[in-house]
This record gives sequence, C-alpha cells and structure tokens, in this order.
Amino acid sequence: MGIKKAKAPVGCSNRHAHLTKVDVEKLFGAGYELTFLRCIRQPDEFVSCETVDLKGPSGTKRGVRVLGPVRETAQIEVSVTDARRLGVKPAVRLSGNVSGTDGITLVGPCGEVELEAGTIIPARHLHVSPSEAEKLGLAEGQQVSATTVGERSIVFNNIIVRIDPLFTLELHLDTDEFNAAGLAVGDSAELSWVGL
Amino acid sequence: MGIKKAKAPVGCSNRHAHLTKVDVEKLFGAGYELTFLRCIRQPDEFVSCETVDLKGPSGTKRGVRVLGPVRETAQIEVSVTDARRLGVKPAVRLSGNVSGTDGITLVGPCGEVELEAGTIIPARHLHVSPSEAEKLGLAEGQQVSATTVGERSIVFNNIIVRIDPLFTLELHLDTDEFNAAGLAVGDSAELSWVGL
Repeated sequence: MGIKKAKAPVGCSNRHAHLTKVDVEKLFGAGYELTFLRCIRQPDEFVSCETVDLKGPSGTKRGVRVLGPVRETAQIEVSVTDARRLGVKPAVRLSGNVSGTDGITLVGPCGEVELEAGTIIPARHLHVSPSEAEKLGLAEGQQVSATTVGERSIVFNNIIVRIDPLFTLELHLDTDEFNAAGLAVGDSAELSWVGL
Repeated sequence: MGIKKAKAPVGCSNRHAHLTKVDVEKLFGAGYELTFLRCIRQPDEFVSCETVDLKGPSGTKRGVRVLGPVRETAQIEVSVTDARRLGVKPAVRLSGNVSGTDGITLVGPCGEVELEAGTIIPARHLHVSPSEAEKLGLAEGQQVSATTVGERSIVFNNIIVRIDPLFTLELHLDTDEFNAAGLAVGDSAELSWVGL
C-alpha cells in the first residue's frame, strides 16, 4: 500500500441536456433529428446545434445545449448554481443513474416536455481508458482525490473512476467546481489515491 | 509544531455591491440614502433594499444587492460564474484591496456609473475575533485549509485569516465554492493549519 499519484487534464461540463428521440420530436417537430455542431472529447457524443430552455419552479435557464446522439432516457445536467436559480434540488449522480431523480420542464421551438425524472448534478468523476486504468492500477468505481494549484487551490475528494474504451484520462468537473478552483481550459490536477 | 484543527461555520457570499455616496446618488437620485433591509453577520454592515444591474461586455446581471453603509471606494464582488456571464475577468482579492482591478458598469433607476476599478472575486477568508485568534493561535494574514464532508467533500486551501473585533469565527466562501462543496446554510468545515 501507499499513496499513488498521477496528473490528469481537467474538463468542465457546462449545463446540458441529453434527450430521447420522442423528446426531440416534441420539442423541435415531428421527424426532427439533432444536427452536429462540434465534437467533444468523448468520441461517441457530439454537441448539437439545438438548445432548449429549462423551466423550473423559480426560474428559467435559456439556451441550454443539447448533446447528441439521442439516448434511451433523458438526462439534464446542471450545476448547483443553476439549480438554485431554477428552484430545483437535484441529486448528485453519475451519468446514466437517474432513477428517482427530479423532473423539470423543457421548452423548445415546437413544444414542451415535462420530464418526470432526469435532472442531476453530475458527480465529479475521472474518465480512464482500460489501458490507462491497468497502468495506474485503478478500478471501476474506485474513488480518488485531485489537487489543483494556484491561489484558489482545492482538493476534490470522492472522484469516481469510470473506465471505458471510449474514454481518455480526464477529470470531469461541473462549472461550480471548475470555477471554485479558478481553473482554465488546459489546466491539470494531481490525482492521488491509496494504491493496494 | 503540529497540525492544529478547529471547526468553523461556513457563510456564503452571493454577488453584491458596495457603493460610495456619490455612486448611490448617481444611481438612485440626488440626496438618496441606502435603506436598511436586514442585518448580516458582520454587525457594521447591512443588506439594503437597493439593487443595481451589473453590465459587462457580454452580459448583464440584474438585481444585484447593494450592501450598506456606503464606503469610500466602490467594490463589486462576483463569482467566477458571474464573471464569465458578464464577460469580465476580475482578480481574486481580499475585500478592500481593489487597486488595479477591472471596472464594470452599474445601472440604477436614475442613472449609470462606469466604475474604473473595483470588480473582484472575493478571496476565500476566515473571519476571527481577536480573542478567538489568541485562543487558536491564529495570526492576521495566516493561511489555513478547510475540509468539508459529504459526497462533494472538498479541501479549500489558501484561506486567509482576517482578525477584527467585529468578526466572529466564520469561513467565507463565494457561491461557486459553496455550491461546489454542496454546502447548505448552517454547515461547518474543519479548519486545519500548522501550529508554530
């Protein structure tokens, strides 16, 4: 046993929406398909040209980016700052784990969708490829910490390791976390965990 | 020497403005004085009924609370999230240290004020009374860390100790920091520092 360390680039997830095919048609019109705007680091997803408004009990966030392709289940990822503005209190969850979470109203140019669940604060997590995981000795679901440097230096605990062939090593934070640490695009953090 | 620890309540500073008498009259009208809305923990200041809009190069934040009483120098405190929305890049500074910082435009019901400086991201800091400081062995300007618990556990480094007879022990974070750690009103953090 001993403390193991590694450096990882930090990515910032702004608020965004993953929609189902049915949601897309309700919001943008019958037969509508999401259109490609640009790539993201995760190669099986893309930023679409489409945006929706999120309508909560106490406020609205306009122009929230939709990520493609469509999914089997809708998932709306917001920061706590966003959630307070909207008047919702979403659970902190890993992507894909939305059962029992709060709903929200989506507004598009052709209609509205009342989601019964799917609104989450994304749990901080580390993307790792299988080969990187093997080299570093990291296991799926394991937790690591990450330290940032600078005047707003922070140690983020409870970062969940996610291993997938489509991933490359990157720490994913939401905007509150990224801004609290005063991070800029291209910055890295030092990961640390107890090696077994 | 050794690691010393203490528990402190955490307070969250939302975006707000400190104005001069001249600013208040330009924004709200000749002879206008800020009106008391409610107390804050720091007993020589109060939340006023007045709000201003902050106008930056790429956006506006409406209804930003003004704190009273008026000061000799204007100071506008925002989070990094706010700053990105406004299109400004303020320095991280302790309250009162605004020389050389960026300006911003304030909009009130009776006029606008173009501040040439004064916009800051408040540096995380710890308020301590002189008697608490003596008991804990803390000195003005010393830096401590603070650990929060829970699923969004964070260690905040570089927290600057400020000692004043008007202060009681409280860690001051901005909204990005408070939300990144998933804190709620009434939560505490564990301070730690190297005792000499």
